[in-house]
Amino acid sequence: MERQSKGRGRKFLYSFSFHTLMFSIAIHGGAGTIARHLLDKEKQAAYEAGLNAALNAGFALLEAGGTALDAVTAAVVSLEDCQLFNAGKGSVFNHEGRQEMDASVMRGDNRAAGAVAGVHGVKNPIHLARAVMEQSEHVLLSGAGAEAFARLQGLAFEPDEYFFDAFRYRQYQEALAADRIQLDHSASGDRKFSTVGAVARDSQGNLCAATSTGGMTNKKYGRIGDTPVIGAGTYAHNATCAVSCTGHGELFLRQVAAHQVHCLMAYKACSLEEACRQVVMTDLVAIGGEGGLIAVDAQGNVAMPFNSEGMYRGYRSSNGKHGVFIHAE
Amino acid sequence: MERQSKGRGRKFLYSFSFHTLMFSIAIHGGAGTIARHLLDKEKQAAYEAGLNAALNAGFALLEAGGTALDAVTAAVVSLEDCQLFNAGKGSVFNHEGRQEMDASVMRGDNRAAGAVAGVHGVKNPIHLARAVMEQSEHVLLSGAGAEAFARLQGLAFEPDEYFFDAFRYRQYQEALAADRIQLDHSASGDRKFSTVGAVARDSQGNLCAATSTGGMTNKKYGRIGDTPVIGAGTYAHNATCAVSCTGHGELFLRQVAAHQVHCLMAYKACSLEEACRQVVMTDLVAIGGEGGLIAVDAQGNVAMPFNSEGMYRGYRSSNGKHGVFIHAE
Repeated sequence: MERQSKGRGRKFLYSFSFHTLMFSIAIHGGAGTIARHLLDKEKQAAYEAGLNAALNAGFALLEAGGTALDAVTAAVVSLEDCQLFNAGKGSVFNHEGRQEMDASVMRGDNRAAGAVAGVHGVKNPIHLARAVMEQSEHVLLSGAGAEAFARLQGLAFEPDEYFFDAFRYRQYQEALAADRIQLDHSASGDRKFSTVGAVARDSQGNLCAATSTGGMTNKKYGRIGDTPVIGAGTYAHNATCAVSCTGHGELFLRQVAAHQVHCLMAYKACSLEEACRQVVMTDLVAIGGEGGLIAVDAQGNVAMPFNSEGMYRGYRSSNGKHGVFIHAE
Repeated sequence: MERQSKGRGRKFLYSFSFHTLMFSIAIHGGAGTIARHLLDKEKQAAYEAGLNAALNAGFALLEAGGTALDAVTAAVVSLEDCQLFNAGKGSVFNHEGRQEMDASVMRGDNRAAGAVAGVHGVKNPIHLARAVMEQSEHVLLSGAGAEAFARLQGLAFEPDEYFFDAFRYRQYQEALAADRIQLDHSASGDRKFSTVGAVARDSQGNLCAATSTGGMTNKKYGRIGDTPVIGAGTYAHNATCAVSCTGHGELFLRQVAAHQVHCLMAYKACSLEEACRQVVMTDLVAIGGEGGLIAVDAQGNVAMPFNSEGMYRGYRSSNGKHGVFIHAE
């Protein structure tokens, strides 16, 4: 792996060599205990198709010379529109029986960022996060106020029927009966931290990260996890990496997980692989933080570590390498 | 300044030498353009009295062998109860003409954290943030849900009259008329980023940070700043530092400012002074982020840098050093 040099060398690298570097995209659709014996071939094929559709939507833009920002937006929209993943259309039910969604996006070039927390009815929360970044003077908007901003921006809303799903509703009824706030857990023992996300490096050398989630089934008290928090669930800096997390949000918040990957690369000269491993396999594990993350570095290398049984994930790079995975390879 | 050694040396330092180290507390009451000619002697004395009361409330606990957590809580409660500062009782009016407050707290020993965003009517939001940390499985609660949790916890609420202040109301009317979202700005040209916060190191070597704010006058759309965001406005880690920020929240969020101070110390071996200077005087300035922060390190040293004209601040250490300040010394 090509390691980036510090100081003046960095500028040279960016100015003259970017055309020799890869453009890449990586995505995730959540992490957790994904029991192999419960994932039949048909179900597995459906998840893989959902991941491939999102990867291809983002990669097609990169291939045409598009920006990392457009690529991660397209990939996350694709995952939000897929019923299988807990974001957008597939969002779980909160305690009040409605969807309460979070999303965030960050650009690595100017480190502009936008995020929303606890929004309801917005078809694509990632579009709203991007509108906050591009059309407001704020970074993080929440609740009914964020929805009012979405309406001003002319973003699409959908009625409750659009978000309704019989399986999600059953999860909610189970959790309600047990008075249990839960991540994304079925009676079958399938425990998932369902968030979707994408990171990309484009052919211009710009990095971008985006994350979106429907939260926890039966969640109460206006709980906000790591997804809309810049530094925790999402972070991007052109000098180092773009990161999108999925896992038990409270622990990722306390770890400031995404920003820690950046800092290990920026201040300790770790490679992307080393930094991600430190955060996911050591520091998060030390505080009981189950989950994983996807990350891309300034050279287009991809890392997708997780400390849970599985993580829906995939990547595709301009060097021809690609793949979608659910469990450890 | 005594510099902490890495690895085994650190354990030795903690185990046998803590009784030789200082306990300290530092507080802030917001940063910004605090015009000297508008701050008459009477006004200045009132601010200094407010800062001293908060400092003494926290320091008395440290002196009696109390915890950093109790010290920062007491200091922030004192500032929240003082009409002069934009937090708790002195909170500004949002666009809807009511107070929408944020707060957070983090312990450096186990890095537990609690925070609330956009709560109304809660007398001391810092008590609620601490209840989230100690009595819930969550880190960040928001809005009406967070208020419901506060009621379950039996926390004190106050009617709107308690929070009413003629000066704040005039600010709000001015901002409303100008359709201007603003930090804490009067017609006199006095521009302030009003947040309160405290950091402390106790005699056991534990660090803690707490921050609380009434937000921006006339703020809309459920905007959330850096105050309730662990990593941005507040961070604590026993190995390095405890940090509480005040400034233009959006820039502190994008900079992940408090966590960056920690990372510069943890991964680049910066001193507290060097790390704080890098974040406040270089990195925040580079993206236009006006404000400052207070920080204490594992040895009880204090740093209080700001890049604005002034910052209401003070500190007191067991070595006898203390002081409260408004402008540069």
